[in-house]
Parts: sequence; structure tokens; C-alpha cells
Amino acid sequence: MKLGWQDIVDLARGVGFLGSGGGGDPATALLALQPLFAAGASVSLISIDSLPDDALVAPNGWIGAPTVSLEKLPSGTEAEQGLRQLEQLRRKRVDAVLPTEIGGSNGLAPIMLAIRCDLPVVDCDAMGRAFPESQMVTFHLAGLPATPAILTDANGSCVVIDTKDNVAHERIARAVSVAMGGICHMVEYPMSGKELRGAAIPGTFSAAITIGRAIRAAREKSEDPFAALFGALRASPHYGHAGTLFEGKIVDIVRETRDGFTIGRVLIEEFGGAAECTVEFRNENLVVRRGTATLAMVPDLVTIMDSETADVIFTERLRYGQRVKVVGASAPAVLRTAHALDVMGPQAFGLSDQWMPIEKLNGWV
Amino acid sequence: MKLGWQDIVDLARGVGFLGSGGGGDPATALLALQPLFAAGASVSLISIDSLPDDALVAPNGWIGAPTVSLEKLPSGTEAEQGLRQLEQLRRKRVDAVLPTEIGGSNGLAPIMLAIRCDLPVVDCDAMGRAFPESQMVTFHLAGLPATPAILTDANGSCVVIDTKDNVAHERIARAVSVAMGGICHMVEYPMSGKELRGAAIPGTFSAAITIGRAIRAAREKSEDPFAALFGALRASPHYGHAGTLFEGKIVDIVRETRDGFTIGRVLIEEFGGAAECTVEFRNENLVVRRGTATLAMVPDLVTIMDSETADVIFTERLRYGQRVKVVGASAPAVLRTAHALDVMGPQAFGLSDQWMPIEKLNGWV
Repeated sequence: MKLGWQDIVDLARGVGFLGSGGGGDPATALLALQPLFAAGASVSLISIDSLPDDALVAPNGWIGAPTVSLEKLPSGTEAEQGLRQLEQLRRKRVDAVLPTEIGGSNGLAPIMLAIRCDLPVVDCDAMGRAFPESQMVTFHLAGLPATPAILTDANGSCVVIDTKDNVAHERIARAVSVAMGGICHMVEYPMSGKELRGAAIPGTFSAAITIGRAIRAAREKSEDPFAALFGALRASPHYGHAGTLFEGKIVDIVRETRDGFTIGRVLIEEFGGAAECTVEFRNENLVVRRGTATLAMVPDLVTIMDSETADVIFTERLRYGQRVKVVGASAPAVLRTAHALDVMGPQAFGLSDQWMPIEKLNGWV
Repeated sequence: MKLGWQDIVDLARGVGFLGSGGGGDPATALLALQPLFAAGASVSLISIDSLPDDALVAPNGWIGAPTVSLEKLPSGTEAEQGLRQLEQLRRKRVDAVLPTEIGGSNGLAPIMLAIRCDLPVVDCDAMGRAFPESQMVTFHLAGLPATPAILTDANGSCVVIDTKDNVAHERIARAVSVAMGGICHMVEYPMSGKELRGAAIPGTFSAAITIGRAIRAAREKSEDPFAALFGALRASPHYGHAGTLFEGKIVDIVRETRDGFTIGRVLIEEFGGAAECTVEFRNENLVVRRGTATLAMVPDLVTIMDSETADVIFTERLRYGQRVKVVGASAPAVLRTAHALDVMGPQAFGLSDQWMPIEKLNGWV
């Protein structure tokens, strides 16, 4: 499937939703892609099933604080430098690229790289959303090694990490991203086509396009964009349950950048009502509470959106006075196993809550 | 020249002095070497002039907080792993090793590696003392690249840094050392024999042995160890001026660990006198003042020693009540050029003092 500019715009909207408040606003990445598509670029999106077993694939994206990415623009050479370094290490050409993280701006990262290096993008990722740490991926759940991982920055500096411990990899990569100025590009979990088939979440890339397209189409026809979003999510193979958790006005926000993360909590008050809702975040939205009742917990998706336009409001853009809907969706099944919850469930974020599926918490089933 | 156990013990004492209060106590490194020498190990120390032009040499040492090294013992495999990684990157065997930093425990680091890999140690280093940051080396002054640099830890993790910017290298390497648990091994500034001859300070390794031997010999003969130390320093090609700057009792000490450094100031009171002396330090001793008169400034060497035994007291071991001599020596000439002072003079440490040679400040010439 060839992706044209409209697909990319829809993709940007879709990955914004899947970011669950994190992953960074794809607007900057979209700006960088616009002139390339205006000049005739296109990108091939290929199915995970079409990859040869021995293909070399390069999952990639940016690591660091999204707040920094708003001010520190990439040089444009980081991703290709990382890809070429991987080819040198493996003495083999890379056959395809893919996003490690479909949610947020990282969902768009492989597009630029695919155009520069004339490579296809594989329709899959390893999160089905965005997560703040690099071991929070299905590749890690499948027991695959994160390294060799290659980190590159706008000054041409390059760091190669090699370790058997995927959590040590995250710790080192995070420290390097801070030392590189708060953000850098990373190629990690290099693997074969066969390994990818056993470890990725298939179809999330095209799911993001479908989600974005549904919201756009509704807005063009002056229909309810939320109804369109929920319809697209429920029809997707991975996000079967979806709905509005809360609607109101932001009345308080606490946010800080610490250890390379955007950490905080937002308080939302019901329009003309007494109910209050809090959303805690650590790059991504983690948990939603209405009073003392929990409405959603990571890894289920929680995205705060403008209540009129259904534009995503990323955690670093939350402001007092915004009128919002807090929207939730069920996470892909592979993120909801006991093993997965150890790695990316509430406890992995220091929360004491016992995880419960969003569809049960909200009586959707 | 073959080095035996007595040489290593003398070396440990000498590198302690050259550490200028920093670089870490070599006692732990000495403990690790003892069984190897008891089992018959020896090490070849070779002159920098004997290296072939195209030899590959590996400057190396440990990066991190000396306080951590007291509790977190190395696995023993870090250094060899780093060396083998360099050989793989360069597709060439390493011909010799050397300490990046002769002062403190890093002066002993290449001994262990030389024994494990059956390689000679080159009689030179890149500081002639100890410094807290990795760009504070004559290799950097000579315009040589710090990378590829290889950082390895006790768990077998390995990080390769590649950058054109030696200061960025320091920033990244420092962050990695923290992520690796506070300390790790580093091979950096890999270069040829020819490059080494143009950039290293020759003879500092044997100078450290000579210094340690002089103090030991004086103590064995119940002679003044300080007179022996000053004699050895004045006879050396690099530390031509030396003497006691102050003698007294430590009456106050302020010390904190900040940004990975041991930062503080010690106040020393003259025995039975009114004079007071302050020594400011940042891992290493930086500046000595008697009242308002400055007696010594970095990069000249300042070491605080037990006034009876001439044992070095490292900055992290300074305590109220210790009876000490503050000993100074002139730094190697290559550290005293205008270019060098920009990198490792008072201003590089945030001091406003204009640098003056220790021999002028004290009327030794």
C-alpha cells in the first residue's frame, strides 16, 4: 500500500490519539514531512506477513522528554546515521523500518527514514500506544534483546549500547538521551522478519490511519468526531472497547520535567456539576479517577481531547481552562497478560492499584 | 623494564601523591593486584620512544565517583572487554596500554589489564596528575579525538561513544557511568604510537614509582619522607619545583557530593600559631590560600599529607583534627600553556583567580 500525503495527515491524527497523551505531538514531524510529499514522495506500507524470514528490520524512534522536542529540532540526519551504523554492525542492509512506538510523534518517525533510505515501513509496532520506557515493548515481552541499540543526536554524536539486560538498556539510553541534550534518535531491537512476526503487534500503523481518517471525515461532514473515533476503535482488531470517561474544564495542573520525564497530574471539573476527575501522567496518561472511583488504568489508553474538535491535548500542552473530554480505550490483548502487566501495568509506574480492564470499570460489557 | 610487586607498591604511593587529593585511593586496586603478583605475574613498562609509529595504544581507566569504587568492586572483566571491543572496531590488535590519568587509583588501572592481556604498559599518561573531567587531558589539547570510547561495567554491558566533540564525550560518558551504577571502565582516545608521542606526557609512570620509592626508602631509614619526596620531584623532568606550603591541624571541613563531584573546602590552623590556610577542592585540590595570599592554583599539584608519615589524605578522607602538611609541586609544562589553562586552569573550575606558577607564588625561584 502506497501512502500519500492525506494518509500521513490522517496517520498524524491517529498516532496522536494512540499516544495516550504522550509520545510527543506529531505536528513538528508532520511539518518536516510536508515538503517531501509536496515534492512527490510516497512511502510503501507493507504487511508484516510479506517480510522474508531473514529480512533485517530496524525498529526506531526518538527517546527523551517531549517538552524538549518542542524546542530542540532534529538535524534530519540522526535517523539515517543510526540505520547505517546498524548496517555496519550487522554487515547487512536493513530491509524495512517500523516504529517501536506507534503512539505520538514516534508513529511518524519511520516515515522520514523510509523516504530518505527508500525503504518500506512495516505495518506494526511494539506498543500499540505510547509508553515512557524502552523495555515497555512487546519485543521485550517476547524475550528479544534490545541491543545493539544506536543513539544519535543532531551534532552527529553516536552511542552504541550492548547489554543482555533490557532494563539496563533503558537506564543507559535514558541517561544518554539527557546527556545528548534531552532527546535523541534510537534504533533498537534489531531483528529478523521471522522474529518480528512473533513479537510485534500487527496492523497498528494502518489502525492509526483509520482512526485519524474517521475523525477527519466526521469533522468534514460536521458529524460528531467522538462517535466516529469510537466506531473506528471498536471496529479495529486491537482497541475493541472505547468511550468517554469524563467531560469538563481543566481547573488545576501540576507538571514538572524530572529524570527525563514529564510528570504530573491534571484536575478536571464537570461543567455545571460537582464531580471532579484527576488524570495522573508520566509522559503518558496513567490513571483516571472520578472522585475515588478508578475509571481507567495503564496499559489501557487514556487520551485527553478538546471537547469540540477532538484534537488531542498532549500532557505537555495541558492548560488551565481547557474544555476537554477524557477518552479511554482498551489496550491490545498482548499488553494485558499477567506478564505484560508486570512490565507495563500500574505497578510498573509505582501505582498501588490492581489493574482492571477499562470495559469492566465502566460497565461497557 | 619489568615491574615486580615492590614497584607496584611504590607506584601506588606515587600515584597517590600525584592525585592531588583526588583520583581515588589506590588501596583497592593494590589489593586486587596482590594475588596476581604473589602468583608470579610481572608487567613490562616500555618507553614511549620504543613504540612503533603504527602501534595501536589504548589509554584507559575508571570513570565515576571514587566514593562508589570503595563499595562497588569490579568484576575484573570490564577492562579486557573494553580492549577487545576496541580491537573489533579497529580490526587490529592493541599493542600497549597506558593510564589516561596517572594520579590516584587510575594510575594502577592499566597494570591489571596488562597482566590479563599480556601487554606492555607505556611509560606516560595524559594528565601528569588527576583531573575530574575527561577532556582535561593533553590528548585533547593536542586535538586528538576522545572516541571511539568504550565503557564497560561489571554486568557485561558495553557502550561505544562516537563524537567529534570531546566535551560532549565527557558529558555522555559521565551520564553512562552514573547509569552503569556510579562507576565503569573506559577505554578512550585510542591512537597510534606516533600520535601518542606527540600528545602524552612521557615518563610519568616511572616518575610515580620513583616518588613512591623515595618516600618508602626514607621511612625505612627513619629519614624525613618529605625531604625525600621533594628531592624526587625536583629531580623529575616534570615536577621541578616542590615544597611544603603549610603545616597545621585541620579545624574545619565542608564537603558535599554534587553533580557527581566531591566539592568542598578545608581549613587548617598553624600549630601554636595564628596563621590559617584554606584548601578548596573539587575531587582534586584546586587552590591553597594562607590568609588572603594564594599559595598554589590548579593545574599545579596540591596534596594534603599526614605530617608524620607522608601518607596521602584524599579529599574524601579529610577529617577534623588531622595533623597535615599541604604539599605543592609545579605541574608539567604542557599543562601551563595559555591553551591548557583554558581547559584545566582556575577558570575551568569556576574560580576567578588569575593563574600564577607555584614557584613564583612561594618565592622558590
